[in-house]
Amino acid sequence: MTTSERRRGRPREQRVDDAVRRATLELLAEVGYGALSIEGVAARAGVGKPTIYRRYRSKAELVFVTAIHPLELGPSPDTGSLEGDLVDLVQAIIGVFRRPAAARAVPGLIEDVSRDPELARRFRDRFVEPERLWVGEILDRAVERDELGVRPDPDLVHALLLGPVFSWIFLARNPVRRGLAKELAEHVSRAIVPAR
Amino acid sequence: MTTSERRRGRPREQRVDDAVRRATLELLAEVGYGALSIEGVAARAGVGKPTIYRRYRSKAELVFVTAIHPLELGPSPDTGSLEGDLVDLVQAIIGVFRRPAAARAVPGLIEDVSRDPELARRFRDRFVEPERLWVGEILDRAVERDELGVRPDPDLVHALLLGPVFSWIFLARNPVRRGLAKELAEHVSRAIVPAR
Repeated sequence: MTTSERRRGRPREQRVDDAVRRATLELLAEVGYGALSIEGVAARAGVGKPTIYRRYRSKAELVFVTAIHPLELGPSPDTGSLEGDLVDLVQAIIGVFRRPAAARAVPGLIEDVSRDPELARRFRDRFVEPERLWVGEILDRAVERDELGVRPDPDLVHALLLGPVFSWIFLARNPVRRGLAKELAEHVSRAIVPAR
Repeated sequence: MTTSERRRGRPREQRVDDAVRRATLELLAEVGYGALSIEGVAARAGVGKPTIYRRYRSKAELVFVTAIHPLELGPSPDTGSLEGDLVDLVQAIIGVFRRPAAARAVPGLIEDVSRDPELARRFRDRFVEPERLWVGEILDRAVERDELGVRPDPDLVHALLLGPVFSWIFLARNPVRRGLAKELAEHVSRAIVPAR
């Protein structure tokens, strides 16, 4: 491995993070989620297994953070309207699920999480809860703008946003057409804004 | 294996179907989707592997038909209103996903389908398309009743119905509360009925 370019003043930890991230994305694309291993990522990144286990508790967590991480980001940007905020969020979800690494990782991740209650609990705390808070912020702003009278259940709205995108791409496996984010967001907006 | 009870006049084919179905559900519950094999099902059912391959092209298809089959059924019952029809359909989807055999099978099935384009194509033709037609019937009745002016895109409505249930159970892994089907169906109904 050539490491000369990586030595220009960036801290070693950052270089290791980058190498692990790159190795994970490469291996996801090459061998898929099922055949990816912590050993393989360590070898490709030129680090030891303990280096990876200090950062991630499991293969599932490594892959989720690396391939799907942006959903964890916040705060949610304020576009000025509920529908605008929802379009942005649905577009972000579509963007994540369409990345080759995520598309290859998601089904296997779901299976791992479904088989391991402890992993499922950690996923809930680490990923589902932040997404729920993100949705909650969007709803709070809509209430402040008087677009919503009553704040709907964030769990339900989360399901109405994430679920159809997942179903479109991974269950029905429809092609993602231009404007899909806007169509879905408009529908969800109508679903949660009560008739006046 | 005792076979004496199965000989009371039912055709042999039906007895074989039943034995295969029972063996599949038992093995799903015992070992999960990943470890289930056609060999294992054949042995448990007391039939040869070719008997199973005459009925199903793959493990994925065997499991889907056995554990998730009812979604294939039609025609959709007419409850007299769009919202009633949607509640029934969402309730049916929740019912399928909550069955222990389906809950254990679905994540692994999605992974198999995601890795095999030919399997994905067959799933689309055999399962997604009938579900889409089922949703289309519900929408047609709503247009006839003048509940809907324009018939919405059945692919979109399918995603709005199936996706949130999937997300609730398999992604967010929320507990299924009483009344969830009605809540979701009411939201989807508002989403697709244009304001007048």
